[in-house]
Amino acid sequence: MTLLADLMVPTLGEPRFDSPLADFIADRRTNEHYVSEDDRVLLHDTVQQLADLGLPPEQVPSFEPGGPRRRLFFAPGSTRVGVVTCGGLCPGLNDVIRGLVMELAEHYGITELTGFRSGYAGLVEGGPEPMRLTPEVVHGINRQGGTVLGTSRGAQDPDAMVDRLLTLGIDLLFVIGGDGSMRGAARISAAIDRRGETIGVIGIPKTIDNDIPFIGQSFGFVTSFTEAAKSINAAMVEAHSAVGGVGLVKLMGRHAGFIASYAALANHVADFVLIPEVAFRLEGSGGFLSCLEQRVKDRGSAVVVVAEGAGQDILESAEDTDASGNARLADIGTFLRDAVVRHFAAVDVPLTCKYIDPSYMIRSVPACPHDAVYCVRLAQAAAHAGMAGRTAMVVGRRHNRFITCRSRC
Amino acid sequence: MTLLADLMVPTLGEPRFDSPLADFIADRRTNEHYVSEDDRVLLHDTVQQLADLGLPPEQVPSFEPGGPRRRLFFAPGSTRVGVVTCGGLCPGLNDVIRGLVMELAEHYGITELTGFRSGYAGLVEGGPEPMRLTPEVVHGINRQGGTVLGTSRGAQDPDAMVDRLLTLGIDLLFVIGGDGSMRGAARISAAIDRRGETIGVIGIPKTIDNDIPFIGQSFGFVTSFTEAAKSINAAMVEAHSAVGGVGLVKLMGRHAGFIASYAALANHVADFVLIPEVAFRLEGSGGFLSCLEQRVKDRGSAVVVVAEGAGQDILESAEDTDASGNARLADIGTFLRDAVVRHFAAVDVPLTCKYIDPSYMIRSVPACPHDAVYCVRLAQAAAHAGMAGRTAMVVGRRHNRFITCRSRC
Amino acid sequence: MTLLADLMVPTLGEPRFDSPLADFIADRRTNEHYVSEDDRVLLHDTVQQLADLGLPPEQVPSFEPGGPRRRLFFAPGSTRVGVVTCGGLCPGLNDVIRGLVMELAEHYGITELTGFRSGYAGLVEGGPEPMRLTPEVVHGINRQGGTVLGTSRGAQDPDAMVDRLLTLGIDLLFVIGGDGSMRGAARISAAIDRRGETIGVIGIPKTIDNDIPFIGQSFGFVTSFTEAAKSINAAMVEAHSAVGGVGLVKLMGRHAGFIASYAALANHVADFVLIPEVAFRLEGSGGFLSCLEQRVKDRGSAVVVVAEGAGQDILESAEDTDASGNARLADIGTFLRDAVVRHFAAVDVPLTCKYIDPSYMIRSVPACPHDAVYCVRLAQAAAHAGMAGRTAMVVGRRHNRFITCRSRC
Amino acid sequence: MTLLADLMVPTLGEPRFDSPLADFIADRRTNEHYVSEDDRVLLHDTVQQLADLGLPPEQVPSFEPGGPRRRLFFAPGSTRVGVVTCGGLCPGLNDVIRGLVMELAEHYGITELTGFRSGYAGLVEGGPEPMRLTPEVVHGINRQGGTVLGTSRGAQDPDAMVDRLLTLGIDLLFVIGGDGSMRGAARISAAIDRRGETIGVIGIPKTIDNDIPFIGQSFGFVTSFTEAAKSINAAMVEAHSAVGGVGLVKLMGRHAGFIASYAALANHVADFVLIPEVAFRLEGSGGFLSCLEQRVKDRGSAVVVVAEGAGQDILESAEDTDASGNARLADIGTFLRDAVVRHFAAVDVPLTCKYIDPSYMIRSVPACPHDAVYCVRLAQAAAHAGMAGRTAMVVGRRHNRFITCRSRC
Repeated sequence: MTLLADLMVPTLGEPRFDSPLADFIADRRTNEHYVSEDDRVLLHDTVQQLADLGLPPEQVPSFEPGGPRRRLFFAPGSTRVGVVTCGGLCPGLNDVIRGLVMELAEHYGITELTGFRSGYAGLVEGGPEPMRLTPEVVHGINRQGGTVLGTSRGAQDPDAMVDRLLTLGIDLLFVIGGDGSMRGAARISAAIDRRGETIGVIGIPKTIDNDIPFIGQSFGFVTSFTEAAKSINAAMVEAHSAVGGVGLVKLMGRHAGFIASYAALANHVADFVLIPEVAFRLEGSGGFLSCLEQRVKDRGSAVVVVAEGAGQDILESAEDTDASGNARLADIGTFLRDAVVRHFAAVDVPLTCKYIDPSYMIRSVPACPHDAVYCVRLAQAAAHAGMAGRTAMVVGRRHNRFITCRSRC
Repeated sequence: MTLLADLMVPTLGEPRFDSPLADFIADRRTNEHYVSEDDRVLLHDTVQQLADLGLPPEQVPSFEPGGPRRRLFFAPGSTRVGVVTCGGLCPGLNDVIRGLVMELAEHYGITELTGFRSGYAGLVEGGPEPMRLTPEVVHGINRQGGTVLGTSRGAQDPDAMVDRLLTLGIDLLFVIGGDGSMRGAARISAAIDRRGETIGVIGIPKTIDNDIPFIGQSFGFVTSFTEAAKSINAAMVEAHSAVGGVGLVKLMGRHAGFIASYAALANHVADFVLIPEVAFRLEGSGGFLSCLEQRVKDRGSAVVVVAEGAGQDILESAEDTDASGNARLADIGTFLRDAVVRHFAAVDVPLTCKYIDPSYMIRSVPACPHDAVYCVRLAQAAAHAGMAGRTAMVVGRRHNRFITCRSRC
Repeated sequence: MTLLADLMVPTLGEPRFDSPLADFIADRRTNEHYVSEDDRVLLHDTVQQLADLGLPPEQVPSFEPGGPRRRLFFAPGSTRVGVVTCGGLCPGLNDVIRGLVMELAEHYGITELTGFRSGYAGLVEGGPEPMRLTPEVVHGINRQGGTVLGTSRGAQDPDAMVDRLLTLGIDLLFVIGGDGSMRGAARISAAIDRRGETIGVIGIPKTIDNDIPFIGQSFGFVTSFTEAAKSINAAMVEAHSAVGGVGLVKLMGRHAGFIASYAALANHVADFVLIPEVAFRLEGSGGFLSCLEQRVKDRGSAVVVVAEGAGQDILESAEDTDASGNARLADIGTFLRDAVVRHFAAVDVPLTCKYIDPSYMIRSVPACPHDAVYCVRLAQAAAHAGMAGRTAMVVGRRHNRFITCRSRC
Repeated sequence: MTLLADLMVPTLGEPRFDSPLADFIADRRTNEHYVSEDDRVLLHDTVQQLADLGLPPEQVPSFEPGGPRRRLFFAPGSTRVGVVTCGGLCPGLNDVIRGLVMELAEHYGITELTGFRSGYAGLVEGGPEPMRLTPEVVHGINRQGGTVLGTSRGAQDPDAMVDRLLTLGIDLLFVIGGDGSMRGAARISAAIDRRGETIGVIGIPKTIDNDIPFIGQSFGFVTSFTEAAKSINAAMVEAHSAVGGVGLVKLMGRHAGFIASYAALANHVADFVLIPEVAFRLEGSGGFLSCLEQRVKDRGSAVVVVAEGAGQDILESAEDTDASGNARLADIGTFLRDAVVRHFAAVDVPLTCKYIDPSYMIRSVPACPHDAVYCVRLAQAAAHAGMAGRTAMVVGRRHNRFITCRSRC
């Protein structure tokens, strides 16, 4: 069970400066579009959840709202900020970078903005030279996919990264990255805290799979399933035009079938959608292969969408019995394709199987307008929280409200 | 203040049949993705709102969750259903029609599905012949914009429409339409009730402007601002390439600047965004015209986005003083364009003003994948509610939960 | 050297009927947009080619122009027509089918239009049931990729196909297909001729690779390189965002690098384009691998585009020396990827290699407007030629003029 | 009749330098893809045209081929080049600018590249400051519509422009612009010649309408009709969804209906296409209005596409009889819309007329890949011709061969 304390975000200290935005928010109250600075956003949203808690309102689990604060911990104008992008590509990275730079430069007057290159590898001594970020540098980068800062996978020693932040005099670090990178950011925060330093660390969680706990839709997700839907359509066209046509599309989603499911819902042409959340059998009556065979017999063709995390148990057991095929078994897409080919050959049903793995084509596109707006608002929420002295936290959205949430290591 | 009773949805009577979907939901409980049948979704979502209510959980304002019910009022298989689309075009209409037909035909075994043509005009004696809706008929209609049922504006006599529903033996009517059409649907419900008949009326609210009370984002909105962003980009290209270039784009939004604001946020190239929610002055120091003049002097060009409902007070006062120009004054877009031309001529600043009114280009496109998914889920929620005997209600989404809500006349 | 006789198209006999289109073309003369029925289109287009021939104008190699004839061999209204699509998918197949049906139905009053399914497999006894083609059936099929008729690879016995055409009473067969399918069509023509039958066979050549002798750009080519350019862009984004990023894209083009070259020219982000027409070395100084290594060292990343037919000599010699890797060697894309990975490991340069094979994503999309127009005009030229009694020929475009050309077995 | 002499391009003098590209073309001969430097491209392409001429090959009208020359008039490396864009926007302008800069900088080593701003207005004393063009400056500009140099309409005194070219030491001027701008360029050439100066002037003709004599398809045309087709689709959706729906789209094309015709052919949904080349009557039996009325009665709706130059005679005669409506009559689009509304009201047929004028939305988009490739190749042909000392000429493409052609004042 989630407690209110689990969701409380640490701060670096008492606010010390007036915000240049204070006038704009002076008389704002909680309404449909805004949550007051001293209000909080409920974790839960149903009567039963509320009744089950049996707590007075001020004790129910809730999040600090995102948005500008009247008072800041860091000085507008003179704070030194770092930005880093980590992990795999995801549509919207450049929108978030641009959003941070524009918000910090235009509204908080920050001029010392450092972009660390190539992920955490750029945050240690000997890494690639950082680049200076200005409104001019980030102009138009949102029209291009990827990240202008570059990225990499993998961790670095937290203390080595803190050393570098101190050397460069960074006051506030924004980390845009996935699950592992958020844990890395939490370790940086812990190291800063342990050493008695005062550097804020704000995470902006990225996962193309849309599986962030608590905090709703992840940025880039809408763009991704929009692109993924094109692959399913291609698989459908290939399948319908061929004799015994089976179009098989592998999509992202290690632990969650969101992309596969939404992409399939978007154009309604998939016959089977295999996702990690729902186990399935491959062989035997009622198993996937005989269902597929039946579908092809009934309709002449079929479209199958499989999330990369689906059927892991099948992969593993296949691995047990067939030690030689080790490497290939890691990939459910090619594994399924081969299984389909073998099955149709065994039952002597004509098959034309087309396999599509569009991963790089999806994650490299620029953010669609929906995600573009979301990214800039997420970046603004991160900037506001950082300037207000929040740390060891991530930004997100819950119930369409922007919120902050304590990091989890 | 909203009371719980305002949000309670009427039903036609006690459920009488088991749902064919009952097994699927038998053991579902409220979680991140699902709200239990006997739970409700909170209207509010902040601690302060909750504290201000000072009510026990079961009395706080809340909505019935959307989704399948274990027991139905209408018999699966034999219920007769009508569908009508009313008012202006909006991306996603065909997705909703298709979603209703597929859900009712595939899951509830409904075979008698009547599509009324040309809006409420098709719901009275002497109107256009209705069409039969089947899974085959609606196949692929989601790839095309508009509505295969046709649409029209304007009301018909509620009793005349009830007469027709009774003649055709319709048990359940789905109305997809705007604010006025929803009021029309409420009047049909009232007439049915008054005459002691048992016909369910379910509304699926459509507004490209995204301004539905209580129920979050309207379908077609994401598609619309995605398209609108292209117009702003065109205005920017025209403005930047010209001497004293001003690109002026008029967008939808009679009472709400959502499309204008989101489209502008999506590509960050607009210099001014004028919306109904924020009043502005045209003339004088600090007025729009002198700000625009300054921007063009500073940067060489400027992009202006105006929602159709912006500056209505200016239009009206202009109307007072210039009675002859009556007709033209109804349109803030051309009014602004003319005002800009006059102003730049008066101050002798070079101007190349390009005016873009993309309305039909926006509302006629097919739904983007995001809206496509939303439309099908909204249609499913409507189908479930209708089969369960709900009436005089609309479907919607709040806090990312699908809900039902009592209609308002 | 090409002789005039090589380009002369056979006819089934003297024209017997007036064309319903005769009035429209009665007084047309050769101009910029039209070639007169009794004029011919030159094969050559330069002064030197002309001088080298040393022939009087009426003897220079030339093509019969496409377009309507005043007199027809087949009777408008009562002719029975068959259509078949063969080989791999290519954007525009449905546009050609639709164009044939619309032209034959609307202008020549043909009502007996048979679509053979699944390529030549549908043209023999025991193949799939043919479908009736009408303007209603083909309505909107151009918005979808693939072919509504289905397709397959491989040949059937020409006499078996002629048997079936005779059984069904087909007068005129349109074959849409690739190089092999055009040879198949020529064999059908030869069998018809040998048996003294009177069935016209008109080929509409399809090759996504754009490598048809004599007859300019193939349909679907512009769509294909348009889509291919997106893959190159994805490779660029991946490469630029990674440490030692190399984006490698394999594109269609067995004997011709047109798609690779045009796609690369379209967005100017490829560093290397490998095509069948230009040999290259893999290893050693000046070889591809060391050039790539240098590029990555200089710029941090590189984008490589390879046509599937490039480097076949390298593949073969690699095959000689490494008999065990047989299967993998058939594919230059994965071969190159593996070679790059090995090379960078050997020289100890950091590498992140992303490999993209977008084949199915490219060939399955609907035709772009440019190709849509081209397809319908090609189909019209085919319909006109067929009705006029031409046979054993293909349609094409040369010097932007539509032409007919004798088939080559 | 066109004479060979009319097509001969003037040169500034004998070539003086070896081309850095000489090695690449040393042994190239005329083939399908290349025309030898000493060969020429025929104006005509049919047997009859050739026979009518009755001339020996070397005297038939023909064009100099585009492409690199072995010997240059201007020195690679030290030549000073100017570029200017004039007239209305057209997709591909930035591609041409980029193509010129890349070809001149990369292949000819030119470093002094000046971009004149705002059309001919930037080519006179007191005009806007020119900008320096480098590979870095033009990087990625092709992804954006419009022209980075800015543009304007209207002429300047040729001698004033020559004065400025001399002051800046420009050796070679590239003018990208429409019909009027090409005449302006010819006047600059004439003034240079009259004053005995040695500055090359190369035109790259731009017309979104695709109506350039001799030289085939104009750049941006494919992009334009691709975009225009979307407007026709929008009109169709609006028309089909409404009662008595008429969708009316006005497209570019002052003297030529190419955009209207190709856009209409691309999606096959227009019922009427009105173009300048084909006169039509508005009123009376068989007139446009009664045909439209009949179509709406038969099918419930209709789509009309009108090129801006269509029906000019109708506009003028309407002007004669209705002097007060002067201004409105200049526009065939709104004129037709009003006529349709009046006609349907007069005959009491229900009408919902939606009028779309997408002009700015079309001309402001980036070039599609097809046009992108064409633009870069056109720019290369221009660069080669300029460096070789050609002047008073334009580049183009005929029979898919790049050519040069003498300017016409």
